[in-house]
Amino acid sequence: MTKSTLKVAIIGGGSSYTPEIIEGFIKRHAELPIKEIWLVDCEEGKEKVEIVGALAQRMVEKAGNLFDVHITLDRKAALKGADFVCTQFRVGLLKARVRDERTALKYDMIGQETNGVGGFAKAMRTIPVILDICKDMEVLCPDAWLINFTNPSGMVTEAVLKYSNIEKVVGLCNVPVLTEKGLEKHLGLAPNEYQLQVAGLNHFIYIRHLWHQGQDRMKEVLNIVADNPDPLRPKNIPPFKWDPDQVRNLGVVPCCYHRYYYLPDQIMLDEIADEKEHGTRGEIVAKMEQELFELYKDPNLNIKPPQLAGRGGEFYSDAACDLISAIHNDKRTIMHVNVRNNGTIKELPEDCAVEVSSVITSNGPVPLNVERFENPAVVGLMRLMKAFEELTVEAAVTGDYGTMLQALTINPMVRKGEITRKVLDELLEINAEYLPQLASNTNNV
Amino acid sequence: MTKSTLKVAIIGGGSSYTPEIIEGFIKRHAELPIKEIWLVDCEEGKEKVEIVGALAQRMVEKAGNLFDVHITLDRKAALKGADFVCTQFRVGLLKARVRDERTALKYDMIGQETNGVGGFAKAMRTIPVILDICKDMEVLCPDAWLINFTNPSGMVTEAVLKYSNIEKVVGLCNVPVLTEKGLEKHLGLAPNEYQLQVAGLNHFIYIRHLWHQGQDRMKEVLNIVADNPDPLRPKNIPPFKWDPDQVRNLGVVPCCYHRYYYLPDQIMLDEIADEKEHGTRGEIVAKMEQELFELYKDPNLNIKPPQLAGRGGEFYSDAACDLISAIHNDKRTIMHVNVRNNGTIKELPEDCAVEVSSVITSNGPVPLNVERFENPAVVGLMRLMKAFEELTVEAAVTGDYGTMLQALTINPMVRKGEITRKVLDELLEINAEYLPQLASNTNNV
Amino acid sequence: MTKSTLKVAIIGGGSSYTPEIIEGFIKRHAELPIKEIWLVDCEEGKEKVEIVGALAQRMVEKAGNLFDVHITLDRKAALKGADFVCTQFRVGLLKARVRDERTALKYDMIGQETNGVGGFAKAMRTIPVILDICKDMEVLCPDAWLINFTNPSGMVTEAVLKYSNIEKVVGLCNVPVLTEKGLEKHLGLAPNEYQLQVAGLNHFIYIRHLWHQGQDRMKEVLNIVADNPDPLRPKNIPPFKWDPDQVRNLGVVPCCYHRYYYLPDQIMLDEIADEKEHGTRGEIVAKMEQELFELYKDPNLNIKPPQLAGRGGEFYSDAACDLISAIHNDKRTIMHVNVRNNGTIKELPEDCAVEVSSVITSNGPVPLNVERFENPAVVGLMRLMKAFEELTVEAAVTGDYGTMLQALTINPMVRKGEITRKVLDELLEINAEYLPQLASNTNNV
Amino acid sequence: MTKSTLKVAIIGGGSSYTPEIIEGFIKRHAELPIKEIWLVDCEEGKEKVEIVGALAQRMVEKAGNLFDVHITLDRKAALKGADFVCTQFRVGLLKARVRDERTALKYDMIGQETNGVGGFAKAMRTIPVILDICKDMEVLCPDAWLINFTNPSGMVTEAVLKYSNIEKVVGLCNVPVLTEKGLEKHLGLAPNEYQLQVAGLNHFIYIRHLWHQGQDRMKEVLNIVADNPDPLRPKNIPPFKWDPDQVRNLGVVPCCYHRYYYLPDQIMLDEIADEKEHGTRGEIVAKMEQELFELYKDPNLNIKPPQLAGRGGEFYSDAACDLISAIHNDKRTIMHVNVRNNGTIKELPEDCAVEVSSVITSNGPVPLNVERFENPAVVGLMRLMKAFEELTVEAAVTGDYGTMLQALTINPMVRKGEITRKVLDELLEINAEYLPQLASNTNNV
Repeated sequence: MTKSTLKVAIIGGGSSYTPEIIEGFIKRHAELPIKEIWLVDCEEGKEKVEIVGALAQRMVEKAGNLFDVHITLDRKAALKGADFVCTQFRVGLLKARVRDERTALKYDMIGQETNGVGGFAKAMRTIPVILDICKDMEVLCPDAWLINFTNPSGMVTEAVLKYSNIEKVVGLCNVPVLTEKGLEKHLGLAPNEYQLQVAGLNHFIYIRHLWHQGQDRMKEVLNIVADNPDPLRPKNIPPFKWDPDQVRNLGVVPCCYHRYYYLPDQIMLDEIADEKEHGTRGEIVAKMEQELFELYKDPNLNIKPPQLAGRGGEFYSDAACDLISAIHNDKRTIMHVNVRNNGTIKELPEDCAVEVSSVITSNGPVPLNVERFENPAVVGLMRLMKAFEELTVEAAVTGDYGTMLQALTINPMVRKGEITRKVLDELLEINAEYLPQLASNTNNV
Repeated sequence: MTKSTLKVAIIGGGSSYTPEIIEGFIKRHAELPIKEIWLVDCEEGKEKVEIVGALAQRMVEKAGNLFDVHITLDRKAALKGADFVCTQFRVGLLKARVRDERTALKYDMIGQETNGVGGFAKAMRTIPVILDICKDMEVLCPDAWLINFTNPSGMVTEAVLKYSNIEKVVGLCNVPVLTEKGLEKHLGLAPNEYQLQVAGLNHFIYIRHLWHQGQDRMKEVLNIVADNPDPLRPKNIPPFKWDPDQVRNLGVVPCCYHRYYYLPDQIMLDEIADEKEHGTRGEIVAKMEQELFELYKDPNLNIKPPQLAGRGGEFYSDAACDLISAIHNDKRTIMHVNVRNNGTIKELPEDCAVEVSSVITSNGPVPLNVERFENPAVVGLMRLMKAFEELTVEAAVTGDYGTMLQALTINPMVRKGEITRKVLDELLEINAEYLPQLASNTNNV
Repeated sequence: MTKSTLKVAIIGGGSSYTPEIIEGFIKRHAELPIKEIWLVDCEEGKEKVEIVGALAQRMVEKAGNLFDVHITLDRKAALKGADFVCTQFRVGLLKARVRDERTALKYDMIGQETNGVGGFAKAMRTIPVILDICKDMEVLCPDAWLINFTNPSGMVTEAVLKYSNIEKVVGLCNVPVLTEKGLEKHLGLAPNEYQLQVAGLNHFIYIRHLWHQGQDRMKEVLNIVADNPDPLRPKNIPPFKWDPDQVRNLGVVPCCYHRYYYLPDQIMLDEIADEKEHGTRGEIVAKMEQELFELYKDPNLNIKPPQLAGRGGEFYSDAACDLISAIHNDKRTIMHVNVRNNGTIKELPEDCAVEVSSVITSNGPVPLNVERFENPAVVGLMRLMKAFEELTVEAAVTGDYGTMLQALTINPMVRKGEITRKVLDELLEINAEYLPQLASNTNNV
Repeated sequence: MTKSTLKVAIIGGGSSYTPEIIEGFIKRHAELPIKEIWLVDCEEGKEKVEIVGALAQRMVEKAGNLFDVHITLDRKAALKGADFVCTQFRVGLLKARVRDERTALKYDMIGQETNGVGGFAKAMRTIPVILDICKDMEVLCPDAWLINFTNPSGMVTEAVLKYSNIEKVVGLCNVPVLTEKGLEKHLGLAPNEYQLQVAGLNHFIYIRHLWHQGQDRMKEVLNIVADNPDPLRPKNIPPFKWDPDQVRNLGVVPCCYHRYYYLPDQIMLDEIADEKEHGTRGEIVAKMEQELFELYKDPNLNIKPPQLAGRGGEFYSDAACDLISAIHNDKRTIMHVNVRNNGTIKELPEDCAVEVSSVITSNGPVPLNVERFENPAVVGLMRLMKAFEELTVEAAVTGDYGTMLQALTINPMVRKGEITRKVLDELLEINAEYLPQLASNTNNV
């Protein structure tokens, strides 16, 4: 481990989060012998990757030139011989996200980018690109680990598992990390003195156990979550209150994203109000991003600026660095990641992606077994949401119109009937340039 | 079989459908040696059972006094020694249904009596009574078959299977019969020259196969259903049109009640319009019923009046007579009935009730095996709806508030958030006199 | 149905059982409009097919020339345009069976032709031929039903289901028929007044239910079978006695072939004694066959000679005629046949062949759902025997040595260790001319 | 952790292995704050527990009086307030084992004490006692962990899980430890640089993965095991050689106990030869034990004597100390233990005991998810052996004769037919004083 040997490729290197991941690698240099990091982006992201890449280079220089930072638009060069490939790209940039959100609002729907019509559209744009990356990886770095944190992270992981030959893939999300931080604060726990087990889908996990000093404190956590404004939400989600009787009845603890299913009407009202006051979430993020990039341009800046904290994506990059180190060092720590189900969650198909607590070995994550969910309410809704994901992934690959319509029809966040068709048609139109799978589907004449 | 020996008890004997079931028994007298039929009702239904009972007696007299018709309010006397018990009662009569519907409309929800808030309320009212009947049966006629056609028929059957000691129970519905009649008309088929296989939940069945002369004509049926205004609906359901791409993608043929899940917005609009013009469905039925009872009072009437046809419940009673005859005569014909799953539908719990094509033997229905459903859209939604049923049945027995709220929260026909609690509280209030399980639940202080 | 149109091809037409199937078709001529029957055999069976074919022609002539009987060695001509293909061939004739039996005896093993080393060897010889027939059928009669009664019938059916494109296949066995006849005799039942449900593998079925006049008489049957010398065995099986405590504990009724697993030592002793006195079973059958063919040669014989009855294969052909008629006439009667599992037996793989009670429609068999087996003893042994079948089928297709050895190693009728290898090597040697799959397996250098 | 607080009760404290577990606790005193250890035995073991207890006291004294060692015949006193209860007792001592072995040999069967007739008899003797201990624990130390290493460890654990209220139970075995040591030697691996995943039943585990530096070295291990005299066996098992083709075909690596299923004839021959030369295994062990106790009596001995090493039970006690420390310190290391299945092994019942790699938390073991077994040979045999275990556990509780006979009948190590009954009857007779469940079973008149 003395000699630095690892090559890391970061696709979507122009992301405003790049300083966080760079800082993560710097902090872990004693355990992670990184030799070179390649920040790669597409033509559309050229300016951004150059700005943030220069900042990354200054950060590394300040830390003592621990490794090289390459900036490139040549994805193949970045992938060649890589040990880890991190994907944090955003097809169509924030502009596409905003278009999705505005289309959703126009039809009185929620345009959130990981579920509903927004998540659907983002999956349709993203999956062709990730599969393209996988094809390159098969040739250029077949033994590399693909660490994805592009949203919708669960569906993107499932697409790789089902439709590529890359088996070493892990989908990451910061919701488990934020959930842990919320729990620690509420229960007065230090990070390593307890063990959480979560299980579900990306942005749809339930806490199954919180083991602490020989006790399972699940019931206590459930009461806390039921009776207080949810303490387990990230800063970018406004406060909200579960119905205590409904949540207690679940028997397991929902994550903050479950409010899209248990409290959709309130969220819709909040979104409309927010939009009137501040614009859509995508627009707010775009503004924050612009401000960040202004900061990043400062040639004297050589650390991650504190303004980056507080965004929804916080800790994503940190989780990525943790995961990479756990794999490289065979740490056998437990992380909460998206992997192939293989019967871990008995109520879901064997071949789908699930987000579950897993031991990280040198060969990647091994999930902890998950006991059957007892409450039909949990099983029913989780199975439905996985069906939406399965159909969306299939649709994103085949471009089949009926499959797309079906995915939206069964999603509880999508309005039903003729309006489903209308919103779908509009999403296809505004995203046309990013949907090569539609062109190749000969059924859609 | 020469000597008439069978005793049939009809609970809810005061139903306006009673002339249909009486006619059914008269028509089948050669194969069904009925000795006595007991029409039993509660105090609230006294007037109705006396009117329709008198008509029944005139009908039987006209047919040559084939069997005796008893009219009684004494349920125990009716059950004692019965061979078949038919349940077609309606707790709280149509007034309770109308109250549910009006409450639903007040909160912009669909008040349909087999699903959503209406079905939930009806299950809450009905299940305590059916379990009470089962307790009587255990003592008075433990070997009798319980043929239920009180709605929600699937949940009522599941309650009996899970919470009583009566194992000989079959839940009936006329949707499969109406579906067959629709198919026969559309495909030009005679009743006995083809075989249908359906599978799902009550009011939530899919056609899996239509075998005819060595061909499976499913794809053809799917195209017909997708491309035409649905030909498989009963007369009491207004015409509607599926989205052809969505339905074709299912790969299996939905029943007419699936429009509550695939086209809920349109139904809501229709219901509001209908209500403005004619009142709620319950009010329309109440008016029809009143007119029927006026007819029934005519001492010269001694046949089933033609005006009874055309209501939604048509063929229920006929199906009941068919089923009773098939059991009594060990016919081994195939009917579509509600029974314990036992793994027939692999995607649902073993111990729940399902509606599936079954061979009727002298020991009751034996389901045909159902191949796995291929489309995740079908599996996801069906699992969700079964979860609603499981929770509703549990809530109807325990009276637990959290379970009730959970059942409604996950039902796609119910609006979410504070409004769920409000509509639930109002339903409990307007149905208070019919909900003994709430009084006995000590958790609900 | 007035005009005769059906073409039936019988592969292995030279079988001594052919008069039975011909008689079966003659008896059913009112319901089965057969136009032509093709008896086809291979060069090795030329003499036999000519003798028995001539008898068949005389039988048909006597019946009034109901249909044509063709005799041929040209399989393709026989298959072209066939509606039903019956397979009753025996690769290597009885000589091969006798060789297997003698090899088994040499190593102190049971050489029975449907399980153990004998069944294994017969599957290895038969499966390449049946798959070859399927390839022809795909071209010459893709819509025909393949009715197999070549042993081992379950494995042959599984091979077709897994490794050919022929989906319309049913495997037949006479054990269920003989079981029914035994039960009828013991319980004093007429054939149509009760209904049996069986489930398991070919030559490994358990009775799950005997429904009669509203009662399930299983417990009674179980006691009869436990306490008497088994009444459910065919004439060609010598009397034997189950251990009453062991069989009663099963909770379900075993078939006569279960004695190979529950009483193997006694069977081994019987086989050795039998062999000494009369030769092996194959030798006895060969002698009987020779005598039959002497009879068949008699130009005055124009009926099925009574001497044919009493052999083990009795009723096979009758079951085949029943099945063909049930399919042709969409009878929806219940028969016990080998079909794709599809979750009918929950404890076995979805894609394997099982022998289960099924409704016969115009589209073939639809299995009755089978409730979970409660006794682990049944589940454990059945899963093991299916594993033997799965591996044998795979080995018969791939010719892989390790797979062959594995199949034998886990079979409880086969002795373990070096001896397994020895007996396998000898089986491969004596059957070499019938094992094309070994030649094509390049792993076996 | 500074103050010593833990109380450990060791039931069967008079075992010759006690010095190993005492040494284990001494070695770990820095991490395991043990205050008192109670060695408890029954009247029959009084002399042994006094001898070995005195040695234990001398060992602890030499180590600096780290904790108190109590010697008692009063089980309740030992259990009261215990934190960990270790069970290593042997009902009927070695005399009973020898009787089982000699009975087995008399009927030409293998008398091994964890499977076959020997394992069956030992389970029958042991399970009533462990359930009795559990009843005491429910009252005296309901929060204690029960660490069982009495054989047959899997069945004993299953009995506790199914028939007691003690949920905190782990069954231990040294086979996984010995397997790891074998692998380390063969592959030149250090203990912590690789991770093994095993799955199966006690004495019936397969290695599923060996992860090392980012590679799964399973195939390599499989080849080593197939081609060499098994390197994964403990010293007390004589060398043997797998069939390379059969083992390679498994696709997973068997443990040394699989030779009872794959090579039973050779083992039978070895056992007979061994018995002639040295007596049965139980007799050899009894002699070794006697020699050990002579050593233990030496008042100058105050360490674990080296002669204890080399017996089959080696490392059991060490594994127990490791497990206790991992629980107490929430180590989250991975151990291979017997726990409730809960779907970890998909092919086995949810509620049975399995031996699987698990993360050890402060709340006990959490199994790693196990991917489906691909080879039917593995699934079939494992399901059969679990059926034997399920039936034996049930029989040990109910004392039902049919269940006992069934368990033996399906076990491949037991000869079938009348002989099964004979050997069972003799086992019941020679063990009569230890089988209270037979007396209470009123079915066995």
